[in-house]
Amino acid sequence: MKSVDEYLPIVGEKVIANIYKKAYRLVNKHILHINSTGLGGGVAEILNNLVLLMNDVGIDTGWRVLLGTSDFFSVTKKFHNALQGASINLSLNKKNLYLDLNDRFSRFNHLDHDCVIVHDPQPLPLIKFYRKKQPWIWRCHIDISKPNKEIWSYIKPFILRYDMMIISSQRFRKKDLFLEQRIIHPSIDPLSPKNMEISDDIISKIFKKFAIPTDKPLITQVSRFDPWKDPEGVLKVFETVKEKIDCRLVYCYNMPPDDPEGFAIYSKIERRAKKHLAKGDVLFILGDNQILVNALQRKSSVILQKSIREGFGLTLTEAQWKQTPVVASNIGGIPEQVINNKTGFLVEPDDIVGWAERVITLLKDKKLAQEMGSNGKKFIKDNFLITRHLLDYLTLMLDLSDRY
Amino acid sequence: MKSVDEYLPIVGEKVIANIYKKAYRLVNKHILHINSTGLGGGVAEILNNLVLLMNDVGIDTGWRVLLGTSDFFSVTKKFHNALQGASINLSLNKKNLYLDLNDRFSRFNHLDHDCVIVHDPQPLPLIKFYRKKQPWIWRCHIDISKPNKEIWSYIKPFILRYDMMIISSQRFRKKDLFLEQRIIHPSIDPLSPKNMEISDDIISKIFKKFAIPTDKPLITQVSRFDPWKDPEGVLKVFETVKEKIDCRLVYCYNMPPDDPEGFAIYSKIERRAKKHLAKGDVLFILGDNQILVNALQRKSSVILQKSIREGFGLTLTEAQWKQTPVVASNIGGIPEQVINNKTGFLVEPDDIVGWAERVITLLKDKKLAQEMGSNGKKFIKDNFLITRHLLDYLTLMLDLSDRY
Repeated sequence: MKSVDEYLPIVGEKVIANIYKKAYRLVNKHILHINSTGLGGGVAEILNNLVLLMNDVGIDTGWRVLLGTSDFFSVTKKFHNALQGASINLSLNKKNLYLDLNDRFSRFNHLDHDCVIVHDPQPLPLIKFYRKKQPWIWRCHIDISKPNKEIWSYIKPFILRYDMMIISSQRFRKKDLFLEQRIIHPSIDPLSPKNMEISDDIISKIFKKFAIPTDKPLITQVSRFDPWKDPEGVLKVFETVKEKIDCRLVYCYNMPPDDPEGFAIYSKIERRAKKHLAKGDVLFILGDNQILVNALQRKSSVILQKSIREGFGLTLTEAQWKQTPVVASNIGGIPEQVINNKTGFLVEPDDIVGWAERVITLLKDKKLAQEMGSNGKKFIKDNFLITRHLLDYLTLMLDLSDRY
Repeated sequence: MKSVDEYLPIVGEKVIANIYKKAYRLVNKHILHINSTGLGGGVAEILNNLVLLMNDVGIDTGWRVLLGTSDFFSVTKKFHNALQGASINLSLNKKNLYLDLNDRFSRFNHLDHDCVIVHDPQPLPLIKFYRKKQPWIWRCHIDISKPNKEIWSYIKPFILRYDMMIISSQRFRKKDLFLEQRIIHPSIDPLSPKNMEISDDIISKIFKKFAIPTDKPLITQVSRFDPWKDPEGVLKVFETVKEKIDCRLVYCYNMPPDDPEGFAIYSKIERRAKKHLAKGDVLFILGDNQILVNALQRKSSVILQKSIREGFGLTLTEAQWKQTPVVASNIGGIPEQVINNKTGFLVEPDDIVGWAERVITLLKDKKLAQEMGSNGKKFIKDNFLITRHLLDYLTLMLDLSDRY
């Protein structure tokens, strides 16, 4: 089972010693994470590893998942979109569904912990249904810099009940919220199948197995088919690049079964990219295999992340860790994830020509690409590995135990 | 929120008073249910209601759901099938996947309860990964009367760690298991949307909305497309009946997204029933709407349950509660659910002619059908409502607290 000392060869003794030292001051603490999915998406991916490591260092750390219905998730997806700026019809019906399911869940989830950490908007109102006996922290993973005003004023009273809000970026700090706001960057696990070292030999085998040709350079975006990820913009960038340099575009996607929007956008891109698909110059690759994603991120010449809103784009961190340069939108949490001109390029989302220029530069200038790749790996090692994330949580817990 | 006193008009004061009296002797107890799904299937349906009622009467009752992956569930489905008698290739790989996920889950699920109740085979080995501090009960919902021998001897050592096994029927008692075995019948909730009273007016509206014709009598089976539910046998029965009396067959089904087997069987029945489907004499109706299922069970002339294996067929209990006579297989837990010749008919699964005869009898003899229907309602009221189920659990808890 996962253990902190396995990370020693990657992050060094000082980091590991620091983790043990802080953790020891927290033994006998019992804390709890609550989110709304055990599988799929960055939050579940982080919790799956982080929670095991917290237990490994001696802190009893529970993880419980809100039991949602499909109606509930369709409402909270609308809330999520509205918090990122989309419009919403905030009906009484939606509010009731949201509150009732949280109320219901609270009835069979008894809390006796020293600290409760609630992730994202789905279980946010849970706090309302308990007699509060410990510090509660709301960990917001999404981009709330420009929320729809109606949803923001609906959500705010729930947030105010908490003792602290954790956000992923400086840019998400809310001036209109009288609450401590702390930045904790997400992280990747360098030992997970998605990020671990794999040999060129394995990469070749995987490319053969999934019939991905390597005779032209690959430009890849790893994302769901979601309007916030701008898959149409990605196609425009690719078409502009292709006028100058022959290459292939890979959409490495996931399709959660309960995402009707995803299917619609997939079909739209399929129509728009028909010619390229027929020639094999655009590839749709289902990324439900972690080693496949790993290989793709390593073998691509450039990784794109053309998001319009982004709390924190884990795929950019994954790509840099694998020494692949990135071109990414200068929005949301992304500017803290990429050092412009050093580990990749930041571009304004609607500057298609600018995007294409940066991609072309990286395809042409192999030396620059390599240099950026190795800068990227160092940047991630120092800032975005799970060991740093664990340390941030330990520091937070120590601060709380001093305070309460 | 759900409360026991809402059931008073249905079950009477004596039952409700008895519940409160027993529950009061259990205040301050903290118990926990663990199963592997929050949605879908009879177990989740029962827990959703039962757990709220247990909390309502003052017993802190938690419910946690094992976080499984699709690989895990594909293995445990094979285990489930093998426990009902199918063959299995019980590889080391399958065993490791099964154990590792349970081990992993135990790391972030800290238990400090007075009693732990584990449902079905998926979380069965959890007990192995704890230092046992309280009575543990394994609640087996499936038909284990004739298991595959290999899976049974693999599973047995896990069961032996428990203090008691709960089964759904006398017929599932295992002579080769040195463990207390107690029968608790499952139940239905008479106030849920699937079982509550609905007016003829609403039924007509629903039939119109879903375009279900009512000019011929309806014979219905409510089940997934699963070999254990014998949908092909259902078609044979229907075809034999139709030689004598014109009628329609309804398959009211559910299709879990992770059930590839279901799609294959659906297609097979579709081909076999092509002619009837074209004429509208066989109908496939997706039962993902509880009120629709409710209306169908009320309006059908006969409800079938042609299972080959069955732990306990909740749909038979639902039908009888709605005064609809049933024809059901004389196997598994079913003989305890239906009084032969009084609330319906029990027939051997392969006696197709016998099945058809009973259905024809019920279609022809309206008076008999009505009488059986009203016998059925009384039988369910006295034996299979959620209040009786709650009482059984309270009795069990009291027995345990006397003992430990």
